[in-house]
Amino acid sequence: MASKRIVVVGGSAAGPKAASRAKRMNQDAEVVLIQRAPELSMASCAYPYFIKGEVAKRDQLLSTPTGVVRNPTFFEGAKGVHAYVETEVESIDRAAKKIVAKNLRDGSTQEIEYDSLILCTGANPRMPPLPGSDLKGITPLHAMKDADFLASVRGNPEIKRAVIIGGGLIGIETSEALQHIGLEVTVVELLPQILMFLDWELALVVENHVRANTVDVIEENGVSEYLGENGAVTGVRLKDGREIPCDLVVVSIGVSPNTELARNAGLTIGETGGIQVDAHMKTSDPSIYAAGDCTEKVNRITGKKCLAPFGDVANLEGRVAGENAAIGDTATFPGVVLSGICKVFNLSAGSTGLSERMARAAGYDVLTATNAGPDKPGFMGGKLVISKMVIERETERVLGFQCIGAGDVNRQVAEAATAVNLGAKLSDLVNLDLPYAPPFSLALDHFLTTAHVAENKLRGLFHGVNCNYVLEASKKEPKPFMLDVRSPDEWEEIRIGIGEILIPLGNLRNRLNELPQDKDAEILCWCKVSMRGYEAERILAAHGWTNIKVMEGGVMAWPFEREK
Amino acid sequence: MASKRIVVVGGSAAGPKAASRAKRMNQDAEVVLIQRAPELSMASCAYPYFIKGEVAKRDQLLSTPTGVVRNPTFFEGAKGVHAYVETEVESIDRAAKKIVAKNLRDGSTQEIEYDSLILCTGANPRMPPLPGSDLKGITPLHAMKDADFLASVRGNPEIKRAVIIGGGLIGIETSEALQHIGLEVTVVELLPQILMFLDWELALVVENHVRANTVDVIEENGVSEYLGENGAVTGVRLKDGREIPCDLVVVSIGVSPNTELARNAGLTIGETGGIQVDAHMKTSDPSIYAAGDCTEKVNRITGKKCLAPFGDVANLEGRVAGENAAIGDTATFPGVVLSGICKVFNLSAGSTGLSERMARAAGYDVLTATNAGPDKPGFMGGKLVISKMVIERETERVLGFQCIGAGDVNRQVAEAATAVNLGAKLSDLVNLDLPYAPPFSLALDHFLTTAHVAENKLRGLFHGVNCNYVLEASKKEPKPFMLDVRSPDEWEEIRIGIGEILIPLGNLRNRLNELPQDKDAEILCWCKVSMRGYEAERILAAHGWTNIKVMEGGVMAWPFEREK
Repeated sequence: MASKRIVVVGGSAAGPKAASRAKRMNQDAEVVLIQRAPELSMASCAYPYFIKGEVAKRDQLLSTPTGVVRNPTFFEGAKGVHAYVETEVESIDRAAKKIVAKNLRDGSTQEIEYDSLILCTGANPRMPPLPGSDLKGITPLHAMKDADFLASVRGNPEIKRAVIIGGGLIGIETSEALQHIGLEVTVVELLPQILMFLDWELALVVENHVRANTVDVIEENGVSEYLGENGAVTGVRLKDGREIPCDLVVVSIGVSPNTELARNAGLTIGETGGIQVDAHMKTSDPSIYAAGDCTEKVNRITGKKCLAPFGDVANLEGRVAGENAAIGDTATFPGVVLSGICKVFNLSAGSTGLSERMARAAGYDVLTATNAGPDKPGFMGGKLVISKMVIERETERVLGFQCIGAGDVNRQVAEAATAVNLGAKLSDLVNLDLPYAPPFSLALDHFLTTAHVAENKLRGLFHGVNCNYVLEASKKEPKPFMLDVRSPDEWEEIRIGIGEILIPLGNLRNRLNELPQDKDAEILCWCKVSMRGYEAERILAAHGWTNIKVMEGGVMAWPFEREK
Repeated sequence: MASKRIVVVGGSAAGPKAASRAKRMNQDAEVVLIQRAPELSMASCAYPYFIKGEVAKRDQLLSTPTGVVRNPTFFEGAKGVHAYVETEVESIDRAAKKIVAKNLRDGSTQEIEYDSLILCTGANPRMPPLPGSDLKGITPLHAMKDADFLASVRGNPEIKRAVIIGGGLIGIETSEALQHIGLEVTVVELLPQILMFLDWELALVVENHVRANTVDVIEENGVSEYLGENGAVTGVRLKDGREIPCDLVVVSIGVSPNTELARNAGLTIGETGGIQVDAHMKTSDPSIYAAGDCTEKVNRITGKKCLAPFGDVANLEGRVAGENAAIGDTATFPGVVLSGICKVFNLSAGSTGLSERMARAAGYDVLTATNAGPDKPGFMGGKLVISKMVIERETERVLGFQCIGAGDVNRQVAEAATAVNLGAKLSDLVNLDLPYAPPFSLALDHFLTTAHVAENKLRGLFHGVNCNYVLEASKKEPKPFMLDVRSPDEWEEIRIGIGEILIPLGNLRNRLNELPQDKDAEILCWCKVSMRGYEAERILAAHGWTNIKVMEGGVMAWPFEREK
């Protein structure tokens, strides 16, 4: 039978999914998977946990859930896919519909014809072209070999200090791994905050936690030069001239789509630098599809093109590309909303959709709501989560949600991501019927109460400000009237100490004479999380005060220094 | 100032929320909260954990997150609400807009006028009128006093054996609590399964787990008589005549809306037995609202009326009723989808929307998809979850989702509940961009792959059957050809053993001659979870077999006896 041949270039995430799906959809097709690295289908998002020693065996990163290594034999038998490893596709001849593949072990090349081609060439780690870049001990964390190198650091007494360049998701996960195995770790970040998927005030809470775990964080600074001796790195020089001695440098300043093959073949590259694809994951050549980190995606919220180098998105795109290459353009991929989550020592941090910063940069008029509280009842071991919802004022559409904390951030962000993917409006969220039992959530789930805060703000019942507003206001003379409405016990345990006075909420109605008699005076109030602060606003507003502002998230979300 | 008076009847869940919201919305209003029990705002869903000893102090069930007991003093100070406890509302005079309240401590009565009334009278536990009902040691688990009684069992050497009547959510949670504190526990259920929010095949997996934790479960049987000596229960007689000795009986066969007050006042009671309310939570009297377990709700999926005695729903309804009573009908409640979750020893079980049974009973033509697999990668400590999605064939709307397992059922059901509340279709789910990192989920989250199974079934790529179909087929002569496509190692560890043969998926293409040569013969195949079973179907279909069926959920979801 003259069968169709589908060639998939790239065997990490999108590629194996595309190849497997293609074969399942069309068993008559011959499916060929070509991978440059020696490994296939690596669980690369787990590399930090491999370095940390949490993954018991290296093979687990490369195996099916039942423990079979996903090598060419596995792909041949279980998937019906011919897989080649350590093989690089050098060029595409689009007119003749064939590629040239080079065996990296023996240098031999072969031409392979295709009916459909799927490019899953991934991304390349960005490596700054600094003096000293060729010193030993400088590595990205991108390929399995990088993970192997960093895992070899464990138990190596020569490696004591590491500098991580870039405080993004991988940089921070890696800082935890290296700290865990005993290294002294410094993260150097060019921007004024770590974890740019969070707004700065939540990122600052996470940064405080990173520092509390003895990882140093240096922001608004970069590395200008690698320092070395005998060919090995011994330190970095920062842009401000400071030197930080180290035996290891991990570069994690992001990735760029690997589009060289596509570009050389004349395929259209999008303005973001990724391969341009349509909703069918088809490139500018109707015989060529692309999926994964190498492609440009549509942001479902803004409608604009973006990059999204995430393993889950790569799998979903691979599934669509594989089907379409196999049976015609039956499947579509709707785009991304940019959901992510990561573990940072004892905290989790996740987000979906747009942060306030991203939303404002995209031109939206937004309302935000910050909420802090336990993930489940305290008597069931509830732990703090702090979240922030971003709403477009005009349409009341939920643009984004971010959450951090020691509690179950996972459920919160998963709920929000589902809602954002589905284009929910705020009014869709305030009465969600969600699963509740005390071991799992509060009666009103944290996500719901964040929506309630947003609704109350939108209706003018709750005038919220963020922690920075309060900090700046406290530096003014005269200061606004600042009011903490918690209990004396809570006040003794923790307090901000920027000039606020304590009037417990339960006494507020009887102590109104202690407030400014000018009813238009600015009053800033807060409690532990925000709920009592909100009650205080309602009481004061009813008594004629006109300029009350509540610090959202309360004392628990305050990321700056406190008196105690 | 002539202020509005809002009277709220009932102080458990909906009532306190309604009263607090009303006051926040209208500080000029006088808000009165009247509660029959001595306690206010009890965390009643946590009673099983209090009985178990997991909640350190009783007061925690009655306190704010910062440890303040929610008593009348708290409500007065913090909420501006006048709360009366141990006070029963005896009647409503709708014409005069006043109620008669009786102080249960001294028997005195007073009339209280209202501008708006909110009924949050809750539900009553159903107690079967059996001989011996007045014996000591027979209790529901509904009020704080019931929880106190059952908590007193802990450390009482006289109480050794308990019978729980009713295998619903509270019955099963209570069975865990009583087993944990050392009792011998038997659950007696009238129906053929426990946990009716699950379809039977998932409920059976949970039931096996309950039995493995030494709780006996007797189904399709009921209690016909309580047996006693010296005024105390000593056992129960079942409908089939069997006697089970016990020192304690917990009755948990559900609740009925407490509508006596409303009924006597002539308010309209719905066909489900709950107080009829509109979307504003308003009863048939425009001055009277109702919220919580006493009301009838709209099922957002079917559009039909239903009951939903859940704490989260009560809070949401209370919030709406409180606002509307305070400032006019500005808020609406959209109804429920019936989401729930519970812990059962080391498993969790949750659901949202309609089960297959409920959907079929409601007349839907449905397609279901069952999926089993880890919640996150095995090397990150992933644990099994089994889920089932119910889709309406005609509209492809997601009608429901249920999930059980030792893994993170919470995230799965929370995602699904969000989607079901938002009216999602299957096509909305297959490409959801969800938060992913190895400590939290698989690259393709379990919920997503369940949607993929459903999509593959809908498109005829995957012909799934459930475990019962396979069990029944295995009893026929001749049996269909039954094929397990796992590895020899897996086969040696666990196998069903109903006449199936083993051909590992990787060898299947080379061993097709071992299959029936009649291409129309029925072939049933499975693997550990379903993925390889699905691959097998695709291979066999491509080779001309026409009648292949895959057992969904594979060996992991098989709830019946196994050979090993």
